Amino acid sequence: MSAPVIPKTQKAVIFETNGGKLEYKDIPVPVPKSTEILINVKYSGVCHTDLHAWKGDWPLATKLPLVGGHEGAGIVVQVGENVQGWKVGDLAGIKWLNGSCMACEYCELGNESNCPNADLSGYTHDGSFQQYATADAVQAARIPQGTDLAEVAPVLCAGITVYKALKSANLRAGEWVAISGAAGGLGSLAVQYAKAMGYRILGIDGGEEKEKLFRELGGEIFIDFTKTKDIVGDIIKATNGGAHGVINVSVSEAAIGASTEYCRANGTVVLVGLPRDAKCKSDVFNQVVKSISIVGSYVGNRADTREALDFFSRGLVKSPIHIAPLSDLPEIFGKMEKGQIVGRYVVDTSK
Amino acid sequence: MSAPVIPKTQKAVIFETNGGKLEYKDIPVPVPKSTEILINVKYSGVCHTDLHAWKGDWPLATKLPLVGGHEGAGIVVQVGENVQGWKVGDLAGIKWLNGSCMACEYCELGNESNCPNADLSGYTHDGSFQQYATADAVQAARIPQGTDLAEVAPVLCAGITVYKALKSANLRAGEWVAISGAAGGLGSLAVQYAKAMGYRILGIDGGEEKEKLFRELGGEIFIDFTKTKDIVGDIIKATNGGAHGVINVSVSEAAIGASTEYCRANGTVVLVGLPRDAKCKSDVFNQVVKSISIVGSYVGNRADTREALDFFSRGLVKSPIHIAPLSDLPEIFGKMEKGQIVGRYVVDTSK
Amino acid sequence: MSAPVIPKTQKAVIFETNGGKLEYKDIPVPVPKSTEILINVKYSGVCHTDLHAWKGDWPLATKLPLVGGHEGAGIVVQVGENVQGWKVGDLAGIKWLNGSCMACEYCELGNESNCPNADLSGYTHDGSFQQYATADAVQAARIPQGTDLAEVAPVLCAGITVYKALKSANLRAGEWVAISGAAGGLGSLAVQYAKAMGYRILGIDGGEEKEKLFRELGGEIFIDFTKTKDIVGDIIKATNGGAHGVINVSVSEAAIGASTEYCRANGTVVLVGLPRDAKCKSDVFNQVVKSISIVGSYVGNRADTREALDFFSRGLVKSPIHIAPLSDLPEIFGKMEKGQIVGRYVVDTSK
Amino acid sequence: MSAPVIPKTQKAVIFETNGGKLEYKDIPVPVPKSTEILINVKYSGVCHTDLHAWKGDWPLATKLPLVGGHEGAGIVVQVGENVQGWKVGDLAGIKWLNGSCMACEYCELGNESNCPNADLSGYTHDGSFQQYATADAVQAARIPQGTDLAEVAPVLCAGITVYKALKSANLRAGEWVAISGAAGGLGSLAVQYAKAMGYRILGIDGGEEKEKLFRELGGEIFIDFTKTKDIVGDIIKATNGGAHGVINVSVSEAAIGASTEYCRANGTVVLVGLPRDAKCKSDVFNQVVKSISIVGSYVGNRADTREALDFFSRGLVKSPIHIAPLSDLPEIFGKMEKGQIVGRYVVDTSK
Repeated sequence: MSAPVIPKTQKAVIFETNGGKLEYKDIPVPVPKSTEILINVKYSGVCHTDLHAWKGDWPLATKLPLVGGHEGAGIVVQVGENVQGWKVGDLAGIKWLNGSCMACEYCELGNESNCPNADLSGYTHDGSFQQYATADAVQAARIPQGTDLAEVAPVLCAGITVYKALKSANLRAGEWVAISGAAGGLGSLAVQYAKAMGYRILGIDGGEEKEKLFRELGGEIFIDFTKTKDIVGDIIKATNGGAHGVINVSVSEAAIGASTEYCRANGTVVLVGLPRDAKCKSDVFNQVVKSISIVGSYVGNRADTREALDFFSRGLVKSPIHIAPLSDLPEIFGKMEKGQIVGRYVVDTSK
Repeated sequence: MSAPVIPKTQKAVIFETNGGKLEYKDIPVPVPKSTEILINVKYSGVCHTDLHAWKGDWPLATKLPLVGGHEGAGIVVQVGENVQGWKVGDLAGIKWLNGSCMACEYCELGNESNCPNADLSGYTHDGSFQQYATADAVQAARIPQGTDLAEVAPVLCAGITVYKALKSANLRAGEWVAISGAAGGLGSLAVQYAKAMGYRILGIDGGEEKEKLFRELGGEIFIDFTKTKDIVGDIIKATNGGAHGVINVSVSEAAIGASTEYCRANGTVVLVGLPRDAKCKSDVFNQVVKSISIVGSYVGNRADTREALDFFSRGLVKSPIHIAPLSDLPEIFGKMEKGQIVGRYVVDTSK
Repeated sequence: MSAPVIPKTQKAVIFETNGGKLEYKDIPVPVPKSTEILINVKYSGVCHTDLHAWKGDWPLATKLPLVGGHEGAGIVVQVGENVQGWKVGDLAGIKWLNGSCMACEYCELGNESNCPNADLSGYTHDGSFQQYATADAVQAARIPQGTDLAEVAPVLCAGITVYKALKSANLRAGEWVAISGAAGGLGSLAVQYAKAMGYRILGIDGGEEKEKLFRELGGEIFIDFTKTKDIVGDIIKATNGGAHGVINVSVSEAAIGASTEYCRANGTVVLVGLPRDAKCKSDVFNQVVKSISIVGSYVGNRADTREALDFFSRGLVKSPIHIAPLSDLPEIFGKMEKGQIVGRYVVDTSK
Repeated sequence: MSAPVIPKTQKAVIFETNGGKLEYKDIPVPVPKSTEILINVKYSGVCHTDLHAWKGDWPLATKLPLVGGHEGAGIVVQVGENVQGWKVGDLAGIKWLNGSCMACEYCELGNESNCPNADLSGYTHDGSFQQYATADAVQAARIPQGTDLAEVAPVLCAGITVYKALKSANLRAGEWVAISGAAGGLGSLAVQYAKAMGYRILGIDGGEEKEKLFRELGGEIFIDFTKTKDIVGDIIKATNGGAHGVINVSVSEAAIGASTEYCRANGTVVLVGLPRDAKCKSDVFNQVVKSISIVGSYVGNRADTREALDFFSRGLVKSPIHIAPLSDLPEIFGKMEKGQIVGRYVVDTSK
């Protein structure tokens, strides 16, 4: 492939202060370090975390000014001189973990997301709401040739996150996984991954439309919290003793608390959402006597990424999206704040 | 060995109602089922659980009248006709789990303590506060010949429990384990097992006498909660990032909560005590970002029992005890209620 | 259910000496021990091991006279007085492991098949080639009500064995498993279990008919050893680096040796067949540099049995069988010796 | 620390052709890449692998001309511009794995030694038989300040390798590990690591002097192959059923074969040496019925390295060495070829 022409400037959505104006404008194209690649981002998913980054309401400070976004899919246009394993023309993804130190005990063991010096896309490193973004070559996601770059975008954060959560539940094929919030954005991806992994799936959510979606995706038992009077009892009965694993996509404290009760003895409750200030309250007597594990699962590592993308590439996981121009990002944030979004928005950086 | 003469009656401490009079008197010697062994109990440890069983203040009802006790060490005097692997003269131990159904999914996997039909010594099955007690042949503990039966008694519950908790922490030799309540009865056993397993040990407790004991047993870093102003900070500093595993022998809610903060990223917090009504409260954001596991650990299974006894037999774990006559049990319970007991009482059933 | 009438005598196939006459005749109905159940066997699979037991050509001596058979499915008609968890009318299966001591370190850990005192159906304990057979209550297989007793019979040995082998390969959903001998009796069950567990399946066998069957069962890549000139190279290429796990259903030494070469670095080769005198030869340099594990997998334990039956009950695994009268067993053995059997024979004990 | 003065030339031992003259002479100091550090090597261990590299008798070609050596300990004198986590003055070690691609599936999972593009010190990358050597910043070993650089040198290959082998045996504290070749260079390190990990240690070697050393290092049972007539039987008896794990430091085919026989059911045999052309022959029937794993263990990864060094730093592992001038390397190779070396030679690069 002949070297692509890289412009000096590009379109991006940028803000100067947390909560300040989101400007769609021309900014310089960044220059990759010798250990980075430069990606021509074609599409980027829009995640709740992007809203937090903009508002600056999490404990960790963002860089400023900041280009947000951490679900970017595009094409490699430049490769740093010390990079191995990438070439111009490869498809690449921008993940939440842009890069890590590769020097600490967490990085050594493939737990790079726990690295104290983690560099985060759209948070401490300019992200995917621009046409050209840099990514650490070690951490950038490898996307197989032929992949639809719009559809794959949400897999780069939402997909990897639920896949990692399912791995953290440490289940065997044939065991029951309960997914709390089964028909939402993360939940519907979790159902599909769980199906591909051979688990039996019980979903918890509210309403008939949600039940319909859940069943179409491969779910087996649906517990409608708008109808049942005893979620815990119903789940224990339906699973003949409780779910072997629970994925708490919902971040409600009450729902998390209930999950420690309908989890089977020796089972695993996985926490995966990042609610501000919420506590997981578990009755010690119950947890000891039933020998339950409650496990925090953060974003996936490079292997989780490769595996999650592979399920997508093989058509086992689908990601329903709405495509909008990058310039519409301020409106999308507005809808998100009002809770008006169903499904996942993906922005097209060319517009 | 010639068949021992088994008397028709024996001495025991028995009560008719929960909280009722503890009577030291003659009762019939029980007759083992075809799947049981009859053990001539020589010594029995006295555990807080025995107090709960007598008072009847736990959610689960006890049998009545009841002979308590679940840390009994003695000699096999009779073997049921369908028993395999036991013979008269073997040394045997009465554990908390007297027997289980061997038919459920928990029993199949060696998690017999989670069996819904578990039969509990000194709770649903007459226990070790008598001279002759029956035990399910599959579950009874095998004690090596030559073992001191008085000293081994507390290992049968306290020792196995802390050993299992340490296994549940899933550590490698050379990693840091923090033991909250390190110099108490359970804690001091935990320190010794942890030492034998190759872990580096940080203990949390109060006072110089406790620190002295902790160091004699092989502990490395002592955090005195009566002196430090920042337990979490001190532990993170001393362990260069947090303890890889935490054993919560202390059942204080505040101590358990703190343990989720000084646990290292990707580490494991183990809950092992059975406080009534206490909650483990974990900050979801912290637990997810640090990818911590909080694990309930109940009593050990047959393999845990064999292993815990083996460390004792090899002299790696010592159990400091006070021996008293069985007839003194009411007084011992009285002291226990008032919190006047230091170390472990063991009753001699011959007196 | 009213107690069934149990006759004094029954039909069985029995032999007095190894390799001696196989007699179809009336023998007494056995009386269960207090820890056993009596099963009215309706159907029994016929396995190569039954041929070995009859001939007596394995290192371990059989009981004599002997009723063979270890894949029996039937109805519980009597329950020993110390049995828990079974009642008359339950469906039950006779497995290879009839009973074990429940007292050794292997039994403690759920590895009952490694018990030195294992009691083997159709080998050291009269088996399922009779209308009424005894089984240890702990080990007998629990078959869900409504199951087709003829079809489930081969699952009780062949199905459990390949399922356990797949578990021993320690794979994740989405990884490649190579099955050497993929379209034979064991292989075709292995393909179905592997599919249900979410693995990608590469099969090795010979001929177009075999390929057709393999693909119908869910296989993805077929390597025809009658056509390829480089099995190792072809598998490494098809799997982009080698199979993560290999199930050696074929017992050819050459095939086993090749499997150590096409196994991916850090992968697992599983040995599951029991060829007499065969060696697994692995190049040490290759095995070290690629960090490969070679694992022996024997018959499954109680949990493996429950899980393997559950996949069958949910319709994910089918077992193609030929039903014949029990009285035809001598002829079936004859065909088996001559290698004339395709698929699995199941005998109907009522004929 | 003020920047050290880095000379243009240095002393090294270099050869132009495999098996050619080993020249001790001045060569240029290498210039680190932006992702590398430059280490002023103070001491380097001498390993059999260095002899293979010089002779060129392994399947993989070496670079030429070549400076050998892969157990180098020294001080960081220069840090590439894209390096994280290193600074001038840090102590650093040169390992066999100098660097890896960090882009393949093996690198992703911390199995960098299996990377197809692994860069090997003293083999494909100039190694530690020179005063200044470059190392990939991600892979270079971090040596704690205050460490004796001569004594730590052999830990960087021999120590890490046996520590990783012990981890691969997947044992619990209190289980038996058999070490075949227990009193040699690798074996004596293995005994010390095994002791620190809480294992019970059985050593196999020949002669009373070896037995004495073995016992001083913490070994419990010694099997002298010059005296016993039944190694397999003796080990099974001494360990009450066989060793739970076996470390084959010895590369004799017969010894490896025997290890599959004295390994306990469900146990693990570890292959760790790299003999040319040797096969591990395991009886399939035995391996299946005993459910044994045979595992290849290669060099450790970054976490293994950190852990192995930590045991050394805490004084739990000692490394007996002979120090010689770098200029004596040709003589040391000569002795090594003749099998005249007892213990480990370490060369001082300043002489």
